[in-house]
Amino acid sequence: MYKLSQILGSVRQLLPDWMLRYQREWLLQDAIAGLVVTLMVVPQCLAYAVLAGLPAQLGLYASILPLLAYALLGSSMTLAIGPVAVVALMTAGTIGPLAVPGSPEYIALAVILALLSGVALFTLGVLRLGFLAQLLSEPVISGFVSGAALLILVGQLGPLMGITPHGQTAFDLGASLFEQVRDLNPATLALGGLALPLLWWARRSMAYWLERAGLRRPLAELLTRLVPLLVLTLATVAVVLLDLDHGEGVAVVGNIPEGLPVLHLELPSVANTARLLMSALVIGLMGFVVSVSIAHSLAQRRLERIDPNVELRALGVANLFSALSGAFPVAGSMSQSVANFSAGARTPLAGVVRAGITALIVVGFTAVFERVPRTALAATIIIAVLSLIDLEALRRDWKYDRADGFAWLGTALGVILLGVEAGISIGVGLTLAALLWRSSRPHIAVVGRVPGTEHFRNVARHSVETDDSILALRVDENLHFGNSVPIDERIRLEIAHHPRARHLVLELSSVIHIDGTALKMLEGLERHVRSQGLELHFAQMRGPVLDKLRGTALFEAVTATSGGAPFPSTHEAFVRLAARARAAQEASGG
Amino acid sequence: MYKLSQILGSVRQLLPDWMLRYQREWLLQDAIAGLVVTLMVVPQCLAYAVLAGLPAQLGLYASILPLLAYALLGSSMTLAIGPVAVVALMTAGTIGPLAVPGSPEYIALAVILALLSGVALFTLGVLRLGFLAQLLSEPVISGFVSGAALLILVGQLGPLMGITPHGQTAFDLGASLFEQVRDLNPATLALGGLALPLLWWARRSMAYWLERAGLRRPLAELLTRLVPLLVLTLATVAVVLLDLDHGEGVAVVGNIPEGLPVLHLELPSVANTARLLMSALVIGLMGFVVSVSIAHSLAQRRLERIDPNVELRALGVANLFSALSGAFPVAGSMSQSVANFSAGARTPLAGVVRAGITALIVVGFTAVFERVPRTALAATIIIAVLSLIDLEALRRDWKYDRADGFAWLGTALGVILLGVEAGISIGVGLTLAALLWRSSRPHIAVVGRVPGTEHFRNVARHSVETDDSILALRVDENLHFGNSVPIDERIRLEIAHHPRARHLVLELSSVIHIDGTALKMLEGLERHVRSQGLELHFAQMRGPVLDKLRGTALFEAVTATSGGAPFPSTHEAFVRLAARARAAQEASGG
Repeated sequence: MYKLSQILGSVRQLLPDWMLRYQREWLLQDAIAGLVVTLMVVPQCLAYAVLAGLPAQLGLYASILPLLAYALLGSSMTLAIGPVAVVALMTAGTIGPLAVPGSPEYIALAVILALLSGVALFTLGVLRLGFLAQLLSEPVISGFVSGAALLILVGQLGPLMGITPHGQTAFDLGASLFEQVRDLNPATLALGGLALPLLWWARRSMAYWLERAGLRRPLAELLTRLVPLLVLTLATVAVVLLDLDHGEGVAVVGNIPEGLPVLHLELPSVANTARLLMSALVIGLMGFVVSVSIAHSLAQRRLERIDPNVELRALGVANLFSALSGAFPVAGSMSQSVANFSAGARTPLAGVVRAGITALIVVGFTAVFERVPRTALAATIIIAVLSLIDLEALRRDWKYDRADGFAWLGTALGVILLGVEAGISIGVGLTLAALLWRSSRPHIAVVGRVPGTEHFRNVARHSVETDDSILALRVDENLHFGNSVPIDERIRLEIAHHPRARHLVLELSSVIHIDGTALKMLEGLERHVRSQGLELHFAQMRGPVLDKLRGTALFEAVTATSGGAPFPSTHEAFVRLAARARAAQEASGG
Repeated sequence: MYKLSQILGSVRQLLPDWMLRYQREWLLQDAIAGLVVTLMVVPQCLAYAVLAGLPAQLGLYASILPLLAYALLGSSMTLAIGPVAVVALMTAGTIGPLAVPGSPEYIALAVILALLSGVALFTLGVLRLGFLAQLLSEPVISGFVSGAALLILVGQLGPLMGITPHGQTAFDLGASLFEQVRDLNPATLALGGLALPLLWWARRSMAYWLERAGLRRPLAELLTRLVPLLVLTLATVAVVLLDLDHGEGVAVVGNIPEGLPVLHLELPSVANTARLLMSALVIGLMGFVVSVSIAHSLAQRRLERIDPNVELRALGVANLFSALSGAFPVAGSMSQSVANFSAGARTPLAGVVRAGITALIVVGFTAVFERVPRTALAATIIIAVLSLIDLEALRRDWKYDRADGFAWLGTALGVILLGVEAGISIGVGLTLAALLWRSSRPHIAVVGRVPGTEHFRNVARHSVETDDSILALRVDENLHFGNSVPIDERIRLEIAHHPRARHLVLELSSVIHIDGTALKMLEGLERHVRSQGLELHFAQMRGPVLDKLRGTALFEAVTATSGGAPFPSTHEAFVRLAARARAAQEASGG
């Protein structure tokens, strides 16, 4: 008995928190959400597998085990993971140049990509390196998603018309499309051309009309989200009734083997690891960043908390399980998560339900997808990604911060014109360059006292009192390799402009870190200041800087005249330096 | 007459500043310095050309026109440019894998490298992008120079013994050396083995003994610097007298064609540009950074000023002229510049003199170098680069800042084990990662009032007064994509820890920039704060942030309760929020 309770205790520790505090009344909500979401997203799952250049059933395989893994390990209550448009696009972009889409080699590479992506994310999570994902700033992510959406859209125009354009960039795809346009299949285009406006209308206005018809808003929105399934059903019925696939050459999904995926995993060769690792990392991180931002925004509405390092590990294992199922990289999906949230999901149990229903479909009902026309899938994808193109974000970024705007544009145009990874590299490069550029132009202000207070403010912005014999400068940036040269130059310039100054007070209230390069700069500056007949002082030095500088020769030299410590405030420096000047004057006068 | 004076005026504007204010008494000093430095550095110039895998005379060609270009365009009075050990190593590292050292194709690629390097530097200078060089932090440069010096040293052990090891990394070179060691040439090793300790002793102790013998220090140092020339002369005399080159197989410099280099420049092919451009940029930037740091340290002693963008353009044109002379990339040299400075050079005229004497040597005296043994050149290089290995810098960096120490070690080990460019990439990567890592862990302090003052300090470090209803946080870092997630998390945590707080005051005294990603974070935070029943306030917002935030919805929401503007200080926020609380209490009490 003792042992059993021990074992139960250990099992309890392994269970996720939400299971331990599960309340019975959530069960129905989770079950309904799981069912509804499955019906909504099955078309998407098939479509994104096709978008990735893979057999459609892999989209279903990727929606079983990965969901269970995430339910056990994830920190979000409502994030729905599975195949995602941009990740599918990145998968196609990575493997497209290496193998023929749909071939066994291609599929094997997609599995390796999911595996490496999973290992990379899990490792980053264990090492608590989630902060690396912050390299992907808001404008880069937004620009990337918009650019990728446009790229997907252009790519889907082919299947919509029954042709197969090739290329990794919008230019190549567009040119290929233009070349083949005379080969388009009229029946396919007609079918897709009917589906497209219907889906568009449903997304734009159906909820509104349903509400006007008296439905409550959540129900109206849920019904709207089921329209893609309805359209696919209608299109499939049309194919079956009119025998469009055999008679008119309308491309359909085709035979989907029945039965659960065979679990199988082998270690990739060194060569394949080498050529896919970098892409796997980028795909994994991009999926992670998008997932966390979705999870964050949903968690905020219910005051739940998302832990990025937990998410890294959970998404890592989810991708490992996708690889184990013979499928491709997965991530958190915006549309699926919002659907999950709106359908009332309380816990990841909704995901478990969805995984179960998907497994049922795979086991016994794949035949219903056989004659789904690809043009209708293309129409679903086009409508889904249209909403991802967010030019408003560009306008807002551009207006608020030009550097953010450039990063958005650079990423989006890079993705569209040069391909997915080039776009991300450009975006990250631009963001880092902006960060460096900004910190290489530190803000330095000459400060003076606000009359009647102990506060010191920028002389250029406030009317303040100054003292000719004291030059007080406030440096508003950490001192490091990236800015020590311009800081040095600026301070020397100010010294040259204040010939009557006898004291240089550096207010370091904003400085939390001084690296070795900057320390050397300060040593040189101190020599220069002394050679000009001035004394250098530090004021308002923050604790971390003090801890680090204490014991250096510079610190000794500078604080020798202020009692072995920096002045606690610029005010204090002014008071004591002025008193010393008076005392010196009196001494020389007497 | 009018026209002539106009022309003279324009010519004057084109002349460098030092020519216009030239004083006659400087002439002799510059002439002597030019002569002395030429004698000192001729062996180095030959040796570095050989180190770069090129015919020895190219070292002389690279010391004529580039010096004239720098004299006209540079901003340093004493920087001596020419062939430099690390740049020669980088040249060999870049071209080595592409062509056979010494072959016409190899030389042509070296010329293209100088050309591209020049164009890149000049372009960066015109675009005022000198700040990019700040990517190379002090530890990276120091680690690079030390690693490169060790690599050069290992590479020169071959020529010292009369064998030719191959490889781009210390491992490959060492292995190759070990394999061939039985083929060493005894006469060569004997000659090099004699030269090495002599040079070592001269560098270590000769100046000391000369001083003890009664010479003045500057003279003693100058004489010491002439020892390499003396050793080379003795070694050459030994070769000639004992006929070591023909009789014993001692490798010598060989025939050097007489006459000035034929000026010739052709545009590189697109293919060559593509494969050399990146390396040219790295070589150029590394040369630039080292040059500027030398120029800075010399200029400080005479209170002169160095303009990085002027230096970029000057070094760019110097490299173009090196390419025009059929030679390889040049940069500012530490040893040559220090020699120039110590020899009393006042202006770049010393460089012009050196260029003239070098031209004379090339025209009529190349025959004297024909039988200089390569082993003696190797010995000069080994002794010269030994002083570049600066383990003390590693110790100091490691002690002061662990991240700096890692950057140093990573760069040095990268250069030694993986090659020059890999080392630099690793170093830059580590430095950027440290910068991001640091700013992703921003310092946030809960602050309280220092009793009896208007100052607010970290409650964890000072004994200060706080108010339960007001939570005041000071964020010590710009808010951007790299840190908005952890800042958000930390602030929420503090709110959770202060359940009685009704006001959250963010002191932004250290914040100079808030990017779009952080703005979004603040919007979310504001919603969260409101949902917790608190009011968000800003205090001590700096001008640039105010300018940018004004007009955003966030700013309106936050300042609605503080009169449309942030509180000027945390003190003010406390006073006014406390007054409001009292008023509210009285109102509810009455």
